[in-house]
Amino acid sequence: MFERLPQTVTLIEVGPRDGFQMEATPIPTDFKVQTVESLIAAGLREIQVTAFVHPGRVPQMADAEKLIGRLGSRPDVVFTALTLNRRGVERAAAAGLEAVEVSASASDTHSRNNTGMSHADAVAEGVRMIRLARRHGMTVRASIQCAFGCVSEGEIPVERVLETARRFLAEGVVRITLADTTGMGSPRSVEDRISALTADANDIPVGLHLHDTRGLGLASVLTGLLRGVTHFDTAFGGMGGCPFVPGAAGNIPTEETVYLMDRLGVETGVSLEQVAAWSHRMADFLGKPLPGKVHRLVGSGAGPAIPPGR
Amino acid sequence: MFERLPQTVTLIEVGPRDGFQMEATPIPTDFKVQTVESLIAAGLREIQVTAFVHPGRVPQMADAEKLIGRLGSRPDVVFTALTLNRRGVERAAAAGLEAVEVSASASDTHSRNNTGMSHADAVAEGVRMIRLARRHGMTVRASIQCAFGCVSEGEIPVERVLETARRFLAEGVVRITLADTTGMGSPRSVEDRISALTADANDIPVGLHLHDTRGLGLASVLTGLLRGVTHFDTAFGGMGGCPFVPGAAGNIPTEETVYLMDRLGVETGVSLEQVAAWSHRMADFLGKPLPGKVHRLVGSGAGPAIPPGR
Repeated sequence: MFERLPQTVTLIEVGPRDGFQMEATPIPTDFKVQTVESLIAAGLREIQVTAFVHPGRVPQMADAEKLIGRLGSRPDVVFTALTLNRRGVERAAAAGLEAVEVSASASDTHSRNNTGMSHADAVAEGVRMIRLARRHGMTVRASIQCAFGCVSEGEIPVERVLETARRFLAEGVVRITLADTTGMGSPRSVEDRISALTADANDIPVGLHLHDTRGLGLASVLTGLLRGVTHFDTAFGGMGGCPFVPGAAGNIPTEETVYLMDRLGVETGVSLEQVAAWSHRMADFLGKPLPGKVHRLVGSGAGPAIPPGR
Repeated sequence: MFERLPQTVTLIEVGPRDGFQMEATPIPTDFKVQTVESLIAAGLREIQVTAFVHPGRVPQMADAEKLIGRLGSRPDVVFTALTLNRRGVERAAAAGLEAVEVSASASDTHSRNNTGMSHADAVAEGVRMIRLARRHGMTVRASIQCAFGCVSEGEIPVERVLETARRFLAEGVVRITLADTTGMGSPRSVEDRISALTADANDIPVGLHLHDTRGLGLASVLTGLLRGVTHFDTAFGGMGGCPFVPGAAGNIPTEETVYLMDRLGVETGVSLEQVAAWSHRMADFLGKPLPGKVHRLVGSGAGPAIPPGR
């Protein structure tokens, strides 16, 4: 069953955005810069570094412009930011960012709660955002939040996800990502959606953004991989949730994903040990353990994270 | 890829043995009895309730005879105990148990550390144990510890695992289980071993006993399922490890496995909610969170563990 895996996959590090936005402890811009630089040093080549959203709603992202300015641009690394409306796109462009992620929710309830727009309005706004971003010369990734389900609406119909994806694909995005915002995805729903979407996406890469709320995250990553997915959003240390808050759970840990890919002989170009070292640093900074498992083994004396041989 | 899954799988609950043995807090026999009864009420039909091992080495299992006496026998439930030598088998028989698990390690180092026997001696002892248990009229499951790897020896050669399995299969065991004692299994090594072993096992069920040390546990369960495995050891709440001790990590949580199977349309006969209720009770008793994720969502008000629709 593992005969036809892709040779390489791309991990998109989202910890500095999806991980940090969950944290109540203010993270100084300097520490964010160090985080991004450490992740680059570990081999990550696409990093979602912030979100251009309302600073009153997500205070942790209030330094978006300052952070982008500090990071500058690097020839070998793509920095992206999440945007949910044209105001965010304008801010990203003004800050000098060259790539953005435009996102809309497939759940009407989630969309209204999160952005004040209906699902239909959010998709229409998404189309306008993509056009705006492209006029500014930015490359655009699009993502569909709640692409698997939503606590209020249950499972989201595949057809609604596909219709949204088609609208965005028609606008010239460079990737389309299904985001499992509430951690309701499972191997079967990943297969359903990915199989349907890849038929529409032609050569545009399809990505997965999964949360491990119900423990099936890596099983869903494996399913996506078996279905040809080559782009996975992950967060160092599995940031994005707190093990002590019911219902909140982090992104797929970067370290676990690197470990899985390594075991399968799929290259990521990412050093598990170097990512783990920064996860330790982050846990120290926050004064609490991060949700991931593999990073804890690195340097713990509990034996190698990756045993010799495959 | 999910077209030919088995209709049903059997979850073997090992929390009362593999979960409890890790805990420093003494668990009274009464509480163990209540645990087992709650798990039966939740639908589990095979439960590993204790181990007949040296009480000086594993004090938590010192009440094995008393517990077996209290549980009695039930027509619809199989109680098993882990045994590592003939003394354990004799004790299990004397206690009136009708089924045992005979176990030997595929790692020479682990075997010597754990039992004082070389791998070869442990396998020979295993054969004698199976014969002894069968003479006592017990049914025997066999398991191979460190069937994937060992911190000292790295990956264990498949051939050594297969040779051990063949020795046990020849003695009339009713199931052969590959145990990933150190959590070094991965989807690929599960596929390698399961594919090889099922060819030898004929109609004898092959089981998997996995730990989630490196976060790939459920991905490996999925791989096993896709390769025809129908018997999985799991522990309620993912007991068997502590999230704060590097290197220690629990068994595959029963709740996550039920959730995965439900999403795939595979029946377990187990109520996720009822297992989760006991996990909450256990966490209260121990005064610490259990490692699993799904049980935390049940009754948390954070939305249903299983959203409507599949």
